[in-house]
Amino acid sequence: MLRDKKDLVRNYIASIPFDWRLYRQDIRGSIAHVKMLSKQGIIADSDAKTIIDGLSSIRQEIEQGKLQFRTELEDIHMNIEARLFEKVGDVAGKLHTARSRNDQVVLDLRLFLKEETLKTINEIALLQCSLVELAEANKLVIMPGYTHLQQAQPILLAHHFLAYFDMFQRDKERFHHSLKHTDVLPLGSGALAGVSYPIDRQFIAQELGFSQVSTNSIDAVSDRDFVVEYQAAAALIMMHLSRLAEEIVLWSSAEFGFIEIDASYTTGSSIMPQKKNPDVAELARGKTGRVYGNLIAILTTMKALPLAYNRDMQEDKEGLFDTVGTVYSSLKIFAGMVKTIKVNVKRIHDAMKRDYILATDLADYLVKKGLPFREAHNVMRKLSECAIISDRNFREISLDEYHSFSPLFDQDVYDITLESSVAARNIAGGTSPQQVEAALTRARKLLENKCGK
Amino acid sequence: MLRDKKDLVRNYIASIPFDWRLYRQDIRGSIAHVKMLSKQGIIADSDAKTIIDGLSSIRQEIEQGKLQFRTELEDIHMNIEARLFEKVGDVAGKLHTARSRNDQVVLDLRLFLKEETLKTINEIALLQCSLVELAEANKLVIMPGYTHLQQAQPILLAHHFLAYFDMFQRDKERFHHSLKHTDVLPLGSGALAGVSYPIDRQFIAQELGFSQVSTNSIDAVSDRDFVVEYQAAAALIMMHLSRLAEEIVLWSSAEFGFIEIDASYTTGSSIMPQKKNPDVAELARGKTGRVYGNLIAILTTMKALPLAYNRDMQEDKEGLFDTVGTVYSSLKIFAGMVKTIKVNVKRIHDAMKRDYILATDLADYLVKKGLPFREAHNVMRKLSECAIISDRNFREISLDEYHSFSPLFDQDVYDITLESSVAARNIAGGTSPQQVEAALTRARKLLENKCGK
Amino acid sequence: MLRDKKDLVRNYIASIPFDWRLYRQDIRGSIAHVKMLSKQGIIADSDAKTIIDGLSSIRQEIEQGKLQFRTELEDIHMNIEARLFEKVGDVAGKLHTARSRNDQVVLDLRLFLKEETLKTINEIALLQCSLVELAEANKLVIMPGYTHLQQAQPILLAHHFLAYFDMFQRDKERFHHSLKHTDVLPLGSGALAGVSYPIDRQFIAQELGFSQVSTNSIDAVSDRDFVVEYQAAAALIMMHLSRLAEEIVLWSSAEFGFIEIDASYTTGSSIMPQKKNPDVAELARGKTGRVYGNLIAILTTMKALPLAYNRDMQEDKEGLFDTVGTVYSSLKIFAGMVKTIKVNVKRIHDAMKRDYILATDLADYLVKKGLPFREAHNVMRKLSECAIISDRNFREISLDEYHSFSPLFDQDVYDITLESSVAARNIAGGTSPQQVEAALTRARKLLENKCGK
Amino acid sequence: MLRDKKDLVRNYIASIPFDWRLYRQDIRGSIAHVKMLSKQGIIADSDAKTIIDGLSSIRQEIEQGKLQFRTELEDIHMNIEARLFEKVGDVAGKLHTARSRNDQVVLDLRLFLKEETLKTINEIALLQCSLVELAEANKLVIMPGYTHLQQAQPILLAHHFLAYFDMFQRDKERFHHSLKHTDVLPLGSGALAGVSYPIDRQFIAQELGFSQVSTNSIDAVSDRDFVVEYQAAAALIMMHLSRLAEEIVLWSSAEFGFIEIDASYTTGSSIMPQKKNPDVAELARGKTGRVYGNLIAILTTMKALPLAYNRDMQEDKEGLFDTVGTVYSSLKIFAGMVKTIKVNVKRIHDAMKRDYILATDLADYLVKKGLPFREAHNVMRKLSECAIISDRNFREISLDEYHSFSPLFDQDVYDITLESSVAARNIAGGTSPQQVEAALTRARKLLENKCGK
Repeated sequence: MLRDKKDLVRNYIASIPFDWRLYRQDIRGSIAHVKMLSKQGIIADSDAKTIIDGLSSIRQEIEQGKLQFRTELEDIHMNIEARLFEKVGDVAGKLHTARSRNDQVVLDLRLFLKEETLKTINEIALLQCSLVELAEANKLVIMPGYTHLQQAQPILLAHHFLAYFDMFQRDKERFHHSLKHTDVLPLGSGALAGVSYPIDRQFIAQELGFSQVSTNSIDAVSDRDFVVEYQAAAALIMMHLSRLAEEIVLWSSAEFGFIEIDASYTTGSSIMPQKKNPDVAELARGKTGRVYGNLIAILTTMKALPLAYNRDMQEDKEGLFDTVGTVYSSLKIFAGMVKTIKVNVKRIHDAMKRDYILATDLADYLVKKGLPFREAHNVMRKLSECAIISDRNFREISLDEYHSFSPLFDQDVYDITLESSVAARNIAGGTSPQQVEAALTRARKLLENKCGK
Repeated sequence: MLRDKKDLVRNYIASIPFDWRLYRQDIRGSIAHVKMLSKQGIIADSDAKTIIDGLSSIRQEIEQGKLQFRTELEDIHMNIEARLFEKVGDVAGKLHTARSRNDQVVLDLRLFLKEETLKTINEIALLQCSLVELAEANKLVIMPGYTHLQQAQPILLAHHFLAYFDMFQRDKERFHHSLKHTDVLPLGSGALAGVSYPIDRQFIAQELGFSQVSTNSIDAVSDRDFVVEYQAAAALIMMHLSRLAEEIVLWSSAEFGFIEIDASYTTGSSIMPQKKNPDVAELARGKTGRVYGNLIAILTTMKALPLAYNRDMQEDKEGLFDTVGTVYSSLKIFAGMVKTIKVNVKRIHDAMKRDYILATDLADYLVKKGLPFREAHNVMRKLSECAIISDRNFREISLDEYHSFSPLFDQDVYDITLESSVAARNIAGGTSPQQVEAALTRARKLLENKCGK
Repeated sequence: MLRDKKDLVRNYIASIPFDWRLYRQDIRGSIAHVKMLSKQGIIADSDAKTIIDGLSSIRQEIEQGKLQFRTELEDIHMNIEARLFEKVGDVAGKLHTARSRNDQVVLDLRLFLKEETLKTINEIALLQCSLVELAEANKLVIMPGYTHLQQAQPILLAHHFLAYFDMFQRDKERFHHSLKHTDVLPLGSGALAGVSYPIDRQFIAQELGFSQVSTNSIDAVSDRDFVVEYQAAAALIMMHLSRLAEEIVLWSSAEFGFIEIDASYTTGSSIMPQKKNPDVAELARGKTGRVYGNLIAILTTMKALPLAYNRDMQEDKEGLFDTVGTVYSSLKIFAGMVKTIKVNVKRIHDAMKRDYILATDLADYLVKKGLPFREAHNVMRKLSECAIISDRNFREISLDEYHSFSPLFDQDVYDITLESSVAARNIAGGTSPQQVEAALTRARKLLENKCGK
Repeated sequence: MLRDKKDLVRNYIASIPFDWRLYRQDIRGSIAHVKMLSKQGIIADSDAKTIIDGLSSIRQEIEQGKLQFRTELEDIHMNIEARLFEKVGDVAGKLHTARSRNDQVVLDLRLFLKEETLKTINEIALLQCSLVELAEANKLVIMPGYTHLQQAQPILLAHHFLAYFDMFQRDKERFHHSLKHTDVLPLGSGALAGVSYPIDRQFIAQELGFSQVSTNSIDAVSDRDFVVEYQAAAALIMMHLSRLAEEIVLWSSAEFGFIEIDASYTTGSSIMPQKKNPDVAELARGKTGRVYGNLIAILTTMKALPLAYNRDMQEDKEGLFDTVGTVYSSLKIFAGMVKTIKVNVKRIHDAMKRDYILATDLADYLVKKGLPFREAHNVMRKLSECAIISDRNFREISLDEYHSFSPLFDQDVYDITLESSVAARNIAGGTSPQQVEAALTRARKLLENKCGK
């Protein structure tokens, strides 16, 4: 309960309830800053040592749960600085020399996001490993390929899962790119104008592992592009996961019945004892909303802000933390879940009992015998319609009847099968076993030795 | 007026009202495809020639406004193919050999977006030129730097505009990255499984200038990442433009009065004859909404779609066209408008008559005389408050009075001026004239010879 | 092609390419305004007549396609006014007395949206009619009810479609509410401060059919809440349509096969002759993105705008027009499509061959014999598992075996059937035939006589 | 740290970390449910009493912080039920009779949101009180009214703040409407089909204060419209607050200097001792992003979900809790902050030293002397331009010079002042003192006796 107006305001503006997560980055950044200050002779070496020791022990206190954060100190920076004063006295006042909260806060966030982006990329690779494993385990399974959720052409199930491999490969590249824009040291930009001390920014960059130093102090404190970029890449990968989730839900239904996922990724019902619900996949699909929302939130917040820092920008963190956590755990869970997928080959084959899925192949057959594609397509449209109406498969149609649609049909029309159809698409990126084998090899190579055995 | 149900459906699903814009790409792609078909012996050379000639003349017809597109033919592909049949007869039916609308439509869109992305990047550079020019023309103008829209510290106006230069530099990098994911040939993926003809995908890629060939046919027809990536980069650049627009509006107000933009970028009022409204800047700021909206639209559309192609994906185009056009024209207009900015140096200096903006410098002064930063900050907080209450500038405070706040103050405190303040921030990325000069040189170099003279 | 900078700016700020759609509203508003001016003696009656006649003939010109709109005149208001000058000379200059473009533009938009909202509401009712018709035609069909896309409990198909009836009923209420906020006359607010003429706002309101007059002139020209409200209601109804679309797509798949929609709502494939794709449903599902996007666009545009009118607000129109059109045509098409749904009762019953869907009923059976619900649930979980493992239906389990799970089972356990299950849920809002009958009656009553025969 | 896969999944799907907030609603709902079960003879009265006593004591335990929630029990419902088993033994198993988690969870959320919506509405009224108070305290202050952030026409400052009153009045109406759709009892819908027990839904509705009972069980468990509706109303009110925030920030700048807000709503700078930043207003403006994001999140989550309940829908809560809290605290803070606004009348008047803001009045002057409006406007455009070029006010222009622009000018042109301008707009909704007085009276009446003294 908020007692009065003062508490209300304090709670409204305090970021410590969420930015405490940056304590490691904040202390790490402060230590590097102080080292530099002493190296440059801006503060005495002994003062630097006192401060660094103090900061190190504060980190321990936090990690041991001994430091109670105080809302009235507003943020993680002031909480740590206040504790430093308690521990080392007035020398603590030198820590903030040649630094502003504006460049400090964005430093912490960049350090945090650099770590997290690498973790994200790593988890993507592990999910890719699971996909490759699943594809390899079901290398020769033929399934209906869908467009418009209608059976279209036969494909290898491995080929289908490798489509996701390719999507996630692009995701990795996107996170690598956003990492580049995150990996820039802002410290030294002060409040907005730079600082008036002879600091060594390159030294700090090296200490903290930044490969670049910001080139404009106003931009450095105003810029949250790196947050937006991560969020945009996250929105895209959640979109991909939502598609995979949709298919897992669909294929787990009684009506499809193509796959079964391990019970550890399903839950029962509070009322219907027979049910095995794919809750994890559904939840991941649902969490797409949250990640899209966080993207639009930061974009909205940043819209039309005059330079340089404005307090609106404090809103950069919670959405980012939420997205980072959501993406990380979703990836980790999918990596586990995909591994447990059991493919029900019988149900899949049953789904293709009606062989209309071979219609394209029959059209191509006519084209190869000389008919222009559009005409072949017309022949097959009529033939398909006729087969459907009379409830017969193509393989049940007599050669005579075939001839009534086109004289080009011959006995070898019966050689067209699911297997021959798949094998025929032996073109770079196609679904033939040979191409899929090559794709698997390529995938393995791209993953290097990320996948455990 | 829609007469009946059939018209209604036809209009609902037709994409020709907007995808006619892709006619050039569609014809270019078809020609490359046909060349390949003949090279591979899939169709006869003479047929290929007939088709290519037909397509070329259709392009002319379209460009001369002679071809009336028909809604009942649904999209640009079928409109062109139907016209081809009229022109060359049944041989037209061979054009679609070894190709599906699914890989064709995404080919066209990729060709389109490749061109447009390069144009976008070029326009960004031109806007950067204007910013550099403006910065150079006002190199020595000192203005108040703001945080929280409160005067914070003096900065060079050139430094302020170069902050935008840096933002737009990142934008260029983002568009370059999205270009990489756009620059992939999908043709040869067929409906989703690849094609069963001995096509040469590398040949087509070379013909059309693609540097990569897609590696999974299912992904190739399902993937719209490149659209989302462009849209995300566009959202970010519109955010940047909205910030610049906000400042132009703000600074053009009677109360700020820092700048004047040319009358060609303002409009009068229908009722208030004295007004000169910065409509262009406002409109650009408003258009941020549209671009954010288009981003969320495509993300929403793609959410949870099962593989491979679904008709939902037809919604990829209108939002993209709108965003591409909005970003392009906004950049072009800003490049022009920024050039016309006249800086009102007098109003800017008047704004800093109260010299409280030097408080940080006075605090730094004390630090350099040995006071820990936090103590110096405390001294200055009291001194500032006192000056404000008594309505005096720092320069009007006597040394005696200074002493009553800290004995460290000396005569040289009066040497602290706007100029000395700016000069002191002589650190990489800082606002000192020397740093800004270096930044201008770097900017010029990054622009190479993009800027006209 | 834009020739030069001036054209570029002109095109950027011109709204005539889209706001020409408001010509009827603009003329209607102007006529009412002029009538009032003459009634109040602000302009002469003869002048008023001249202007009104001029405006009426301009409307005819527009409707006959005889008036060429000019971009350099910027918007529909100036295009009409300029034409009026051509037609009636200088007296045209009196039209704008006691009015500003700021209150005029929002008047036009309110007039437009009032009409369109009523049209939207009407189309919703027609779609509801189709749902009721479909439900009535399949009143006794039992189908599996789903949660998590897993078969959960038997329901009446009619009950399922009536769920959508209820959703759309709420949508109608929302549009009625947004209509209330649209139905406010802004005219008389001038540029922002009101006007200095003795105008009669109530008179204009009556002329134009507004039930309220705005109460604050600044708010009146700054307010676009009514646009946002329509957009928000539109986003919700598109969400509902996307759910219905998803089920139509799902149920049309070979694997479900529950329904067939008329061929006029499906399309064939360019390459796969056997296909019948539910394109219309997919496209509607995809268009959800566009409507969500338009909502976020206007919200973004309006964020943080200072009062009163800003040019950003010109962005209120295109997104609204797009949403209004999308919602209207989607509703109209669904009303038609739903009517054509043919229910495949055999496929639906086949889907429930496995009778595990009765597990809840068996648990309830035990509860009614005295077992606490949680225990009954546990018994049934084990029994279900056992049945599934041994690949038997509940009806194939012997009474002896039932007893081994619980002594409470008796011969009457075999009386539990799909029919009895549905009938048992005879509670307000439940799926029993009696309740569904009542729901249909209620639905018919809510629709009054909207539905044709 | 997550130890293993099982923990990972458990944490991913658990809602107890956030839905514990619904414990009061959950217990309240369960008690009403049990009362009804016993009333209907579905469970024994003594069992009902035992369960109710148990639930009551669990509520106490929770409120005293004595109940440790367990993640492995997933949600608040199971946590409470499990505790009930510990306390009262197997009879606890009867609580879930004739109920499913699907109707229970949405019951809790509806109970929660009903309360919160009323609280939101109440806070809006309190903010309106502050606006009215501020308007009354500055009733006669004339300020520049802005369009395009350019001075347009003089207005009463009270009129300006009353514009916000009107916006917030609409917000209240919107929340009242969303309340109507929230105020519907879902209990009795079971998992999706209704329940097979003779329950009394009206009785529960009365117990819990619902004015309606849901009419379709499938819709009842699938429907989250009420969440979206609240979120949409929240997005709109945050948009309004962002506009007010923008003006507070703007007017607090040194350049405007129109107002001062109390120090309790500003913060100092870590580096610039002189600063007084309007952090609270900025933060509220920034939080617009979060609320827009939460709206788009729930819309995205719900898109294209088949009926009925899907686990995706668990994502309905966190965003709602966040929005509810953000709106509540923002309103409360603004109510306090607005009250502290001190208007700097001198700075406001100084801003209007240049009297070009009277140009419309001069044009109206000419119109009233017989010139058509457009001509009057033209005269004044030229006159304004001339005055601006020669750096003179209108009042400094001689009558002779006036005559050179139009012979209609007379001595009384000098009677046009800020005061006369404002007074002239004496039309419903206009800015004249009389109208503003009436608006204040109306506002007071609408607030009834909400405002304290």
